[in-house]
Amino acid sequence: MKSGFVELEDKGKAAKAASKRLAFLPTEVKNKALLDVADALKAGEKEILAANAKDYADCQASGTSAVLLDRLMLDSERLNGIANDVRTVAALPDPVGEIIEQRILPNGLQISKKRVPLGVMAAIYESRPNVTVDISVLCLKSGNAVILRGGKGALRSNLALAGIVQKAAYKASIPEGAVQIIESTDRALVNQMLKMRDTIDLVIPRGGAGLIKSVAEKATMPVLTGGIGVCHTYVDKSADVNKAVAIAYNAKVQRPTVCNALDTLLVHSAIAPKYLPLIAAEWDKAGVEMHCDKRALSILGPVPALKVMPAKTDDWGKEFLSLIAAVKIVDSLDEAIQHIARYGSGHSEAIVTEDKAAADRFLNEVDAACVYANASTRFTDGGQFGLGAEIGISTQKFHARGPMALREITSYKWIIIGNGQVRP
Amino acid sequence: MKSGFVELEDKGKAAKAASKRLAFLPTEVKNKALLDVADALKAGEKEILAANAKDYADCQASGTSAVLLDRLMLDSERLNGIANDVRTVAALPDPVGEIIEQRILPNGLQISKKRVPLGVMAAIYESRPNVTVDISVLCLKSGNAVILRGGKGALRSNLALAGIVQKAAYKASIPEGAVQIIESTDRALVNQMLKMRDTIDLVIPRGGAGLIKSVAEKATMPVLTGGIGVCHTYVDKSADVNKAVAIAYNAKVQRPTVCNALDTLLVHSAIAPKYLPLIAAEWDKAGVEMHCDKRALSILGPVPALKVMPAKTDDWGKEFLSLIAAVKIVDSLDEAIQHIARYGSGHSEAIVTEDKAAADRFLNEVDAACVYANASTRFTDGGQFGLGAEIGISTQKFHARGPMALREITSYKWIIIGNGQVRP
Repeated sequence: MKSGFVELEDKGKAAKAASKRLAFLPTEVKNKALLDVADALKAGEKEILAANAKDYADCQASGTSAVLLDRLMLDSERLNGIANDVRTVAALPDPVGEIIEQRILPNGLQISKKRVPLGVMAAIYESRPNVTVDISVLCLKSGNAVILRGGKGALRSNLALAGIVQKAAYKASIPEGAVQIIESTDRALVNQMLKMRDTIDLVIPRGGAGLIKSVAEKATMPVLTGGIGVCHTYVDKSADVNKAVAIAYNAKVQRPTVCNALDTLLVHSAIAPKYLPLIAAEWDKAGVEMHCDKRALSILGPVPALKVMPAKTDDWGKEFLSLIAAVKIVDSLDEAIQHIARYGSGHSEAIVTEDKAAADRFLNEVDAACVYANASTRFTDGGQFGLGAEIGISTQKFHARGPMALREITSYKWIIIGNGQVRP
Repeated sequence: MKSGFVELEDKGKAAKAASKRLAFLPTEVKNKALLDVADALKAGEKEILAANAKDYADCQASGTSAVLLDRLMLDSERLNGIANDVRTVAALPDPVGEIIEQRILPNGLQISKKRVPLGVMAAIYESRPNVTVDISVLCLKSGNAVILRGGKGALRSNLALAGIVQKAAYKASIPEGAVQIIESTDRALVNQMLKMRDTIDLVIPRGGAGLIKSVAEKATMPVLTGGIGVCHTYVDKSADVNKAVAIAYNAKVQRPTVCNALDTLLVHSAIAPKYLPLIAAEWDKAGVEMHCDKRALSILGPVPALKVMPAKTDDWGKEFLSLIAAVKIVDSLDEAIQHIARYGSGHSEAIVTEDKAAADRFLNEVDAACVYANASTRFTDGGQFGLGAEIGISTQKFHARGPMALREITSYKWIIIGNGQVRP
């Protein structure tokens, strides 16, 4: 029997070999394969849901939290959603082959930059099994091979989903080996994978802060990190109070478990007496718990009905992923910007103001992937930004920043066509 | 006295702090500072050349090779060249603030992508002291702070050059701390630097393959690797023989010590009997040594005047950086493409052919930063490509590929301007 390491190397080589042919596959072939994958996922519903039910039972028995169990769970409706997302990707424009720049140099050389796949991607992710399908099809559409390594708790679900993707894709002329999944949950294998610099062109870790930090530190190849969002909304002294209530409410309540939800509300001291009671009343209806600094507490006063309590030191810079918001009063735009520089994760930050100069300063000086004036941070999303899909949200500045879709997992090559030119 | 580690951390913090203000500096201020740096380099000639003379004497005494001594050496003319390069960068368009994309979403949100600096760059380089100035001014122009770590042999030269850059730049309103140079040559400090993920946004190693590999493997932050060029020129059966002679001659002879020079010549067997004697005669005039496979040897025959000898196994895939070329006969375009896939370094690869279908296949299928049809690989250069400058040549696919100038050391941010929009 082959050791896990040897098997991993073999999978890497197979993915690399497949990536060479996948790079030149016509768009129609890739699109047809994705539509077949969507159909196969529906046809394989029984098998997928059975595998998922076993994962679910095991996780439940071992005391997995209700939130994580919900993320793990697949049913007919969710599987429909996954299959429809595959069809959406099939309908997107093919990024491969796009000419990014083109010109003729004075010496007659025709020079252009053409978009090409990156090669082999590796995805290391936790919990949600839909990621197995999402990442596979985004990679296939963009001409990249992929090596998948999902979480232990979803192993059976991931294997069932990947198996169906592989079978349908290969039958539809995707080069065999283009989708690889690691069946072992041995952590040593992940460390080994992160050393395979000659095989893997990019690693995308998706999960909690611990996973992302560990991958970024150990990987010898490029890594696209992201997904950790400590998001602030700053209500400026010149804010329209109604807009500020609607925006902070939406940013916190519309979907609190995701990375672009509000974590900390910063309020200018000049508007706080008017604004804070209004947002507190609205948030209270949704069950939001407010962790307030002393000045915010003194404004909100002792209202026993509200879920208001003193903030702890570690509430600043915390990603709550639940119906909790930290609330702080600041005395200036500068103080707000400094607070965000210290505690933000470079994801999404918003100002609410009617003062254009204040908005401009905030948009310029706050160093984050997405900076907003007078809108909810919940818009940070590939679909919302018009990218048609999303493989993740980068909080690094290198290669791609913010929502990433197909183009963001490609590279380019320079093509130079001459007629015998030599360098003088 | 502070330890080297603490000093390094302090330098990192100072660079980070400076980068925050440097990011918003008006273009005119940056350009004026660069022109002042150029003047100061000329004004400081005596000091710089004296420091360089000491480096040179020490390196000579310790047996440094003539090639490396020549790279190290500065004189009045070379210093003029360095100062003029600074003026060239001052005249280039400022990449910071450029709007890359812009549109209005159906919900009225104005969304744009704006170019911003990366933050803090670290450069680890060997030998040539001009790199100290080149990288400093490219970073300043693009709004990035920089931490320099040059080679031991050029330490005094680098310190003199960086000192002058710092003094002139800070006097011209560049934020103090924006240019840092590490004075210790302790290797442990480099390892420490490569762990400073929160301070350094990008590391650029420039030097030999060993340095680049070591940095790529140890760095916990993004790395831009490149500069290793194993470059092939393939003479197809349908090549114009005159063009093929001129191109291979230029690619090998015009400047053999650089990364885009020809290393291996691949010749189709159908054209080899006609072509090989012609290129051999030309190369011979320039003193090129040909390391030939058996079939090439049998064509060139025993001509004692020519510097022709059998190739050794490790000649394939070797970057010669001198007047040596490996020569191999292939029987097809496929064989040429496969040889390049196996031995190329992803830098620059060329085909000479009058057959458009063959050219198209080569340009498509060869996976390199720059692929050429009917031109010399020597053109792979930021200046030649019209970028105006060059901070290096990337052979990775991530972030930037091929020649990199100002834009390639920037990131972008998404700016979203609304009027109270919330996510439905």
